Amino acid sequence: MKAAVTVHSKYTISDIDPRLYGSFIEHLGRAVYTGIYEPDHPTADENGMRRDVIDLVRKLKVPIVRYPGGNFVSAYNWEDGIGPKESRPVRLDLAWHTSESNQVGIHEFAEWCAAVDTEMMLAVNLGSRGLDEARNFLEYVNHPGGSVWSDKRRANGRAEPWGVKVWCLGNEMDGPWQIGHKTADEYGRLAHETAKAMRAFDSSLELVVCGSSNAHMPTYPEWEATVLDHTYNEVDYISLHMYFENRAKNTANYLARSIELDNYIGTVAGVIAYVKAKKRSDKSVYISFDEWNVWYHSKERDKETLAGAHGWPHAPALLEDDYNFEDVLQVGCILNTFINRADVVKIACLAQLVNVIAPIMTVPGGPAWRQTIFYPSYFASAYGRGTALKLHVDSPTYRVEGLGDVPYLDVSAVHDTDQKAVTFFIVNRHGTETLDLNVRLIDFGALTIVDDQVLAHSDINATNTAERPDNVVPRKGDGAVASDGRLGARIPPLSYRMIRLR
Amino acid sequence: MKAAVTVHSKYTISDIDPRLYGSFIEHLGRAVYTGIYEPDHPTADENGMRRDVIDLVRKLKVPIVRYPGGNFVSAYNWEDGIGPKESRPVRLDLAWHTSESNQVGIHEFAEWCAAVDTEMMLAVNLGSRGLDEARNFLEYVNHPGGSVWSDKRRANGRAEPWGVKVWCLGNEMDGPWQIGHKTADEYGRLAHETAKAMRAFDSSLELVVCGSSNAHMPTYPEWEATVLDHTYNEVDYISLHMYFENRAKNTANYLARSIELDNYIGTVAGVIAYVKAKKRSDKSVYISFDEWNVWYHSKERDKETLAGAHGWPHAPALLEDDYNFEDVLQVGCILNTFINRADVVKIACLAQLVNVIAPIMTVPGGPAWRQTIFYPSYFASAYGRGTALKLHVDSPTYRVEGLGDVPYLDVSAVHDTDQKAVTFFIVNRHGTETLDLNVRLIDFGALTIVDDQVLAHSDINATNTAERPDNVVPRKGDGAVASDGRLGARIPPLSYRMIRLR
Amino acid sequence: MKAAVTVHSKYTISDIDPRLYGSFIEHLGRAVYTGIYEPDHPTADENGMRRDVIDLVRKLKVPIVRYPGGNFVSAYNWEDGIGPKESRPVRLDLAWHTSESNQVGIHEFAEWCAAVDTEMMLAVNLGSRGLDEARNFLEYVNHPGGSVWSDKRRANGRAEPWGVKVWCLGNEMDGPWQIGHKTADEYGRLAHETAKAMRAFDSSLELVVCGSSNAHMPTYPEWEATVLDHTYNEVDYISLHMYFENRAKNTANYLARSIELDNYIGTVAGVIAYVKAKKRSDKSVYISFDEWNVWYHSKERDKETLAGAHGWPHAPALLEDDYNFEDVLQVGCILNTFINRADVVKIACLAQLVNVIAPIMTVPGGPAWRQTIFYPSYFASAYGRGTALKLHVDSPTYRVEGLGDVPYLDVSAVHDTDQKAVTFFIVNRHGTETLDLNVRLIDFGALTIVDDQVLAHSDINATNTAERPDNVVPRKGDGAVASDGRLGARIPPLSYRMIRLR
Repeated sequence: MKAAVTVHSKYTISDIDPRLYGSFIEHLGRAVYTGIYEPDHPTADENGMRRDVIDLVRKLKVPIVRYPGGNFVSAYNWEDGIGPKESRPVRLDLAWHTSESNQVGIHEFAEWCAAVDTEMMLAVNLGSRGLDEARNFLEYVNHPGGSVWSDKRRANGRAEPWGVKVWCLGNEMDGPWQIGHKTADEYGRLAHETAKAMRAFDSSLELVVCGSSNAHMPTYPEWEATVLDHTYNEVDYISLHMYFENRAKNTANYLARSIELDNYIGTVAGVIAYVKAKKRSDKSVYISFDEWNVWYHSKERDKETLAGAHGWPHAPALLEDDYNFEDVLQVGCILNTFINRADVVKIACLAQLVNVIAPIMTVPGGPAWRQTIFYPSYFASAYGRGTALKLHVDSPTYRVEGLGDVPYLDVSAVHDTDQKAVTFFIVNRHGTETLDLNVRLIDFGALTIVDDQVLAHSDINATNTAERPDNVVPRKGDGAVASDGRLGARIPPLSYRMIRLR
Repeated sequence: MKAAVTVHSKYTISDIDPRLYGSFIEHLGRAVYTGIYEPDHPTADENGMRRDVIDLVRKLKVPIVRYPGGNFVSAYNWEDGIGPKESRPVRLDLAWHTSESNQVGIHEFAEWCAAVDTEMMLAVNLGSRGLDEARNFLEYVNHPGGSVWSDKRRANGRAEPWGVKVWCLGNEMDGPWQIGHKTADEYGRLAHETAKAMRAFDSSLELVVCGSSNAHMPTYPEWEATVLDHTYNEVDYISLHMYFENRAKNTANYLARSIELDNYIGTVAGVIAYVKAKKRSDKSVYISFDEWNVWYHSKERDKETLAGAHGWPHAPALLEDDYNFEDVLQVGCILNTFINRADVVKIACLAQLVNVIAPIMTVPGGPAWRQTIFYPSYFASAYGRGTALKLHVDSPTYRVEGLGDVPYLDVSAVHDTDQKAVTFFIVNRHGTETLDLNVRLIDFGALTIVDDQVLAHSDINATNTAERPDNVVPRKGDGAVASDGRLGARIPPLSYRMIRLR
Repeated sequence: MKAAVTVHSKYTISDIDPRLYGSFIEHLGRAVYTGIYEPDHPTADENGMRRDVIDLVRKLKVPIVRYPGGNFVSAYNWEDGIGPKESRPVRLDLAWHTSESNQVGIHEFAEWCAAVDTEMMLAVNLGSRGLDEARNFLEYVNHPGGSVWSDKRRANGRAEPWGVKVWCLGNEMDGPWQIGHKTADEYGRLAHETAKAMRAFDSSLELVVCGSSNAHMPTYPEWEATVLDHTYNEVDYISLHMYFENRAKNTANYLARSIELDNYIGTVAGVIAYVKAKKRSDKSVYISFDEWNVWYHSKERDKETLAGAHGWPHAPALLEDDYNFEDVLQVGCILNTFINRADVVKIACLAQLVNVIAPIMTVPGGPAWRQTIFYPSYFASAYGRGTALKLHVDSPTYRVEGLGDVPYLDVSAVHDTDQKAVTFFIVNRHGTETLDLNVRLIDFGALTIVDDQVLAHSDINATNTAERPDNVVPRKGDGAVASDGRLGARIPPLSYRMIRLR
């Protein structure tokens, strides 16, 4: 099977916002407790944060982390997480039917973000609360001092404001499951007034309004049109979420779902354009795709806990998907989609980061390790910064009901003009055939292959575990040839490959 | 005048929910203070509760008591009623223009309920407050411990949660008089989101959404259709209220009003069926008729206090209807209506229980006694449990404007299969003629009369007072004959009769 | 140029509500801090209030002062301003991008009002807050004692309630700039429910609902129709605001704008009549024109501060318009308009009183002085009480685009029947010609001129400053003649004149 790609240095999609490789920590399951925070762990630092996890997160090169939810945020009182730890209230989290000790709050999370060298992206609660609590939280986090909330932050041991730029106006407010769910009009009005108050504090904030929780919501895409009609001039991003499942264990169909993701992004980009024209606005609104991942392996297992059968446990195992090799390919295709939509998607958050549908797993008191999906995320973040290139792809396809003709070759390319590097992220969706890839590179000058990494495995169900953390890992690719403006490589069936040229 | 009734053991309406004989205590007038609670009273127990009242309530056999309102609840802060009594705030109650000392709160009420052997039915404030306070109250009342609010309950001296099952989502939210009155859409949305949060805590709760305050509300019955459209899948009951007046002193018309009650229930049952179909729902919603009684004797007297002419008194005499003999008949007809609608009415609350439009009255520092209406309520609760029987009634009628032909005979029958007993509750609405009643009993086996109680009085205006508490009391009936599947009895004009066969 | 006026003692418009000469103090700029309050000032009284300012305010004879905002109120927590001063929180005021120390709150303001012999008109926050906080504030201010909030007031040193009669239901809620801006329906509902709760506390309160922020709002006058439709039976006044500018430095057009004011009042009076009829209501609603003044001199200067360029200063100079002589004429015309509309305008507030678009200015630590516009306000308040007379005016006119024919003579007349005095307030709008005024007075009896005050200046841009506080001041008028039911006077071009007869 052969496929041809043409790429020209002048034909670009957009500069890539590095925040495309963001992630997410929610107070959910073991993401926080025994995930990033475990004071009794042998590697715990002075703040009780696991150093082994910090090291892995740093390795993943995460530019921004969304916090503290997710569904959790819609009944969260941010004040519960400040002040002396022994005085913090234990709350029942209605979203995940667990107890929340509040031992980690904004201070602890902020210090952890500094430790892992990432930026915070904070969400305010627009479920059970509103404008006033949002503005107080913002003042606490971002005001230098001399006001009641900023002085409380100082009294709580942090003199400098954290200067958080990106703020989410609630979470999945279109979802009937959300505490304090709103109609599009109710939410649009609340988000607009809250955004206004937040901007009155700091007009340079970047605000994210909730779009649809997924493209199958009955309110999609009217939700986007209505909410943006209320908020267009006060917000910078509209948030989308999508999770990927392969319950039917049909690999071909599963890997085709990034086409659906692409359609979803395209539709919402269209809605943005529509409202922009309607508002006669000069400003642009972009997409913050702030929850995405494969999520289905753990769903059956979680049902009892979420239904309350175990009462209100603190930090139970929840959403602990064990990712397999197949999921590497899915994550690769998703990341390619974001890169190829870098003109409209500026922020994206792999949901989530530790333990909860996460690239990094831990055992309480024990080791931390990389799941299979760690690697494509890592390659994208490490080498996917620069300018997304507009590719012309000529690939054989297969037919998927509802999605049309799906190319076997899924690919994106990023031009790092500083490094004078071009990196290709390649997935071969074919189950049995090797892809004979021929890339024509125009106007890049002379390029040679400087790195070539392959993820392939004989068993699509292979996973990494505490005992076998290196079952699925990248290995050096071979056989690729670059010369005379041509790159040739043979991509094995169901494999992921990153080829970097300079 | 003759009337014939046919009853067959297999032709039933429904099992009767014992909560059909519930009652209601609101922080209003002297219901709580000098009603159930009077620490200085000679009979006061260690909690300050009047033992004489406890004894009378126990005698009335009340299975469930709604609390703390009524209109009161729509600006009530439940936290005002917890913690050391000396620290509790005095609030101005805008609903009844009185002061509320908060010396009785959830703890005191719960202990009193245990003392009178009844279940609590609690209302959350959806007038001045919303979802968050409701979920906190619920957590305080029903969570075992280990969370901030449940631990406060424990710190306040109550280790075990009370496990309250039935919760009212506000009170009469269709009434423009309500603090924080809502439109049907506003209320439907708020009730839905609050119900969701409460169910996220405990999916087995039984939730009561507000229907119309009476059948003459301009928004009735569209209110029911709209509110249920918003909330159908999250609620179990819709609340109805109705009060009965005889200002015109026209006994025949007065006693006919239970027909209006029956129509009201029938209409709302129809609305429920309509929304159930619209929602393609499997679950049923029933009626909680959680305020009903005669109320008009005291209205003129109360006007000044309610208009504020006496400032903000604590526990003034309010709504202290002195019930007369005529009201016994009315209450008898109302209870018959509920029994005959036991398939859709599952909860009903006589409003109220002590001093405020109540079957039990007290003198501060002095005696407690039974009003006239105590007796039909008592007979219904004591002997009206089991299965409501479908009666075929053939009675002469009289014409009432707007209600059509009203039978002189008002009757219900309950089959207690455990006790193998059949009990008839009979009212003769005729002002002058005795009713010659002939009942045919089919497939009950041999039955003999085991009890026969009559309420009759030469003066329809006769009342029970502190001085003459036994002016209107039941006496043994006579002349009734049961044999060969026949029951014959002569029912005097304007009388109530309970005949029990086994 | 000649003009004739006919006035008859029986042809009246309405009694004038003295509150037509009210004013306004907002927590904005230096109105409060270094305006009325400056503890370090040489003239400061025991409460830290400047006695020099108190003296000037007393001289202005202000019957009522609106407080504490304005835009400020829409995120104001009134509780921030009570209790020990050292414990009061510093808040960031998002409306004016300043810090609020809360060193002045309701206690300090109330004592100041007593000192200047004026009545309070208080606004509740319906931007970031709602019904509950409003009722608590009301209870704190007006309840004698024995309830939680009134007892807090007593504990804070004030035993007697202040008995404030007039309450504003938020401020400019039609303005998208408002924190917690509402649509007309949203606001109408909230205002209605809040008004109901406030009236349940005291049915005799006078409540002011927000109308349009100005006649150029896109929602005007539908806003008034919608809001009154929701609130008509619970409110007494609808609030209007209007500010006057002469950026184009076109005096003739500038002085014509009181015609627009008159049209605005007339339209809203029409809307009131429409809703009154629709509601079949017996009660009347009047206009509270509770913000009006010239405001444009300082706008350019304030842009940076309002945009946050100076951070969050406490009490910066803001809205410090230096009024010139031309503005005297404008204010004279506006006051004439209110007098001539005294049948529908019952309250009007010169916005504001000290430093902020104000008749009185101060230097921190230094003097206080009267701006030019002090004088027409003073004359109106001092001599404009009584009955507004219906004038027949025959004056030459000039054409102004959009306003039609504008008379050169602007005049109102007030009959003080106690004093048996008739006072004329006269403006000659003509830029160059003297107005030969001939007034025919019918059925007033014999009248002679008892006072005649003129404001005229060779330079329409003349201002009063700290250094030259008496540059623009009234002087005795001369040449006016009253005899035989005739008043004759020559009114110089661009001058203001008050002639009082007895």
